[in-house]
Amino acid sequence: MSVTLAEGFVASGLAAGIKAAGRRDVSLLATDGGKPVPAAAVFTQNKFRAPPVEASLERLNVSGGYASGVIVNSGNANAGTGAKGRADAEAMCTAAAEAVGCDPRDMLVCSTGLIGYRLPMRKILTAVPRLGETLSRDGHRDAAKGILTTDTRPKEAEVVRKDYAVGGMAKGCGMLAPNMATMLAFLTTDAELAPDELKPILFRAADATFNALITDGATSTNDTVMLFASGRKGRPADLARFEDDVRQVCEELMLQMARDAEGMTKLVVVRVTGAASDAEARKVARSIGNNQLIKCSWYGADAYWGRLLAEAGSCGGEFETERTSVSYGGIKVAEAGVEIPHEAEAVRAHMKDEEIDILIDLGLGRGTGRAVSVDLGPGYIKENSATS
Amino acid sequence: MSVTLAEGFVASGLAAGIKAAGRRDVSLLATDGGKPVPAAAVFTQNKFRAPPVEASLERLNVSGGYASGVIVNSGNANAGTGAKGRADAEAMCTAAAEAVGCDPRDMLVCSTGLIGYRLPMRKILTAVPRLGETLSRDGHRDAAKGILTTDTRPKEAEVVRKDYAVGGMAKGCGMLAPNMATMLAFLTTDAELAPDELKPILFRAADATFNALITDGATSTNDTVMLFASGRKGRPADLARFEDDVRQVCEELMLQMARDAEGMTKLVVVRVTGAASDAEARKVARSIGNNQLIKCSWYGADAYWGRLLAEAGSCGGEFETERTSVSYGGIKVAEAGVEIPHEAEAVRAHMKDEEIDILIDLGLGRGTGRAVSVDLGPGYIKENSATS
Repeated sequence: MSVTLAEGFVASGLAAGIKAAGRRDVSLLATDGGKPVPAAAVFTQNKFRAPPVEASLERLNVSGGYASGVIVNSGNANAGTGAKGRADAEAMCTAAAEAVGCDPRDMLVCSTGLIGYRLPMRKILTAVPRLGETLSRDGHRDAAKGILTTDTRPKEAEVVRKDYAVGGMAKGCGMLAPNMATMLAFLTTDAELAPDELKPILFRAADATFNALITDGATSTNDTVMLFASGRKGRPADLARFEDDVRQVCEELMLQMARDAEGMTKLVVVRVTGAASDAEARKVARSIGNNQLIKCSWYGADAYWGRLLAEAGSCGGEFETERTSVSYGGIKVAEAGVEIPHEAEAVRAHMKDEEIDILIDLGLGRGTGRAVSVDLGPGYIKENSATS
Repeated sequence: MSVTLAEGFVASGLAAGIKAAGRRDVSLLATDGGKPVPAAAVFTQNKFRAPPVEASLERLNVSGGYASGVIVNSGNANAGTGAKGRADAEAMCTAAAEAVGCDPRDMLVCSTGLIGYRLPMRKILTAVPRLGETLSRDGHRDAAKGILTTDTRPKEAEVVRKDYAVGGMAKGCGMLAPNMATMLAFLTTDAELAPDELKPILFRAADATFNALITDGATSTNDTVMLFASGRKGRPADLARFEDDVRQVCEELMLQMARDAEGMTKLVVVRVTGAASDAEARKVARSIGNNQLIKCSWYGADAYWGRLLAEAGSCGGEFETERTSVSYGGIKVAEAGVEIPHEAEAVRAHMKDEEIDILIDLGLGRGTGRAVSVDLGPGYIKENSATS
């Protein structure tokens, strides 16, 4: 039940006509009754931010971390639309608040889709009342569908504990295309936490999961991750475990995104150890996971350790060839920048798997990091070169 | 005549059997008579440097910027080969020095091709004497062919002045593939300049041209640019003009590389103005030129200004949406992060050209920079996903 598994939340999703062929394109997630609850959000770091991001950010700042829900539309990102786009975002909040029965200042908003076009507001405002009427705990699937763009399937995840539940739905990230942008993720829990407790937990969880994902290196104007806490089940017995559960839900949603990435045939996890710092380890992992040439060689199932070291050696961090080692699927193929005897057949077999595991040890320090990426094949080109 | 246009230089190139099908794979460029002359070089910034790079770097440091020539092989980069690879590089210098009649310490060496494999030294050492015997001013074309890897054609350029000439040959960069790496460029002049004058001139010229080129963002283990000055024509009357001419030869070679890039259908020049600094302007231009999603949209002739700003806003430099503007082929399509009325037909036509010109003005300061890139289409995937 993902976002409605935790007690106190209802959701709905339907087709307002933004997207073609009657596909769902508006979703509403809210507290049952509309009472504001502690809420935290992580927004895109992109300085070219979309109006709905600005609107939600301001609301959470003013409320001190409380919200009654969020209205989302897909098919149009309401980005690059300036002041008019901001007014449209505000109008979405007002209409959704009325449908939920809360203060417009407690309703957040997200948009995803085309950049640079005004929203079809009449269609959206016409659909919002129906979104309110159809809110229910069974609405999670419709809501999960209403936020999708080029995704091929909805993404939902959940963790259930005796004393609380955490659930979430997501779209995108692996589905970037010239005309579609953004990853969105919405989590709910019935655990009781204060806004200033939720925020760092969500930030760390998102950083450890969504921020490790690279599909084509593009950063969205609308990326948003939100977590709402109804508090219905009281305070969690173990806060550390709660944070692990939030991270787990984010991790599952992130992997579902990667596996749904346009044209992907392989999921590749690049792990870097022995870096001078965690920051440098992540930098190396991301540089490798974002390298067009390397991603293309993954599509060809080509274990080319030399190119991995070439990228590690050129991305700016500390690097000493003599201390490095490279392993594929746990099989060490190179040490000190030189190929060593290894089971080449086993490596070839691993490279043909749907999931490739790469470990680069820099042998310098204790820094570790990872990047989750996908291969680059003809499918990606096909989906992303079409003119709008 | 490129590298042998300037008086005092001879060249040769032939097939040693490193590459298949009798293609030329070893080249020699030297001063006629073997006397060392002022020489400068710019090497890859990659910390995973190939042995031949180390060998040439050390020689120029020891000699204080003098050399008699350079021997080059293609088909094997002699990278990721450790101490044995270094010994092979030294052996190439010794053999070439004997063929030219100079001190082995005055012979430089470059390799390009596969990373991680020992050089077929017997084949190379067998070929070197013949390289010496065939040295001539007419050998420039053979030499230009002997340094190629996946290039489809040799690359030569020259500028002739009354008081001197500058010529050069190059390979690669646009031709990176999982199994092939590196750009190499060799320039010669008969102008008379001291080593400490040549070095900054070559550095600035290479930085303004080769460093602006992005094809797939991979940095090589072997990248090298060299400039030899025979001094036969005496001191150039105008040093500034001489530097312009060196830059011009580098620029022409760089554009030849870009146009020969694997699978490319469009050359794209991304210009950034109004940045807080030149460094930030270049950073934005490079980030856009290196963005897989944007390059893919170019293949589709899709003018998608929103994605350009999204990249500019997320690559770390100063950015204020309200101050930006984006133009394609001189036609302004967006201002302050919002699309403005423009001749859409003319923009569509420009996007279908073989050369696309993009200008992003950040409206912040006086920083300018550019990146020369290519589109990403099926041809690239085809050439780069093949397993070795």
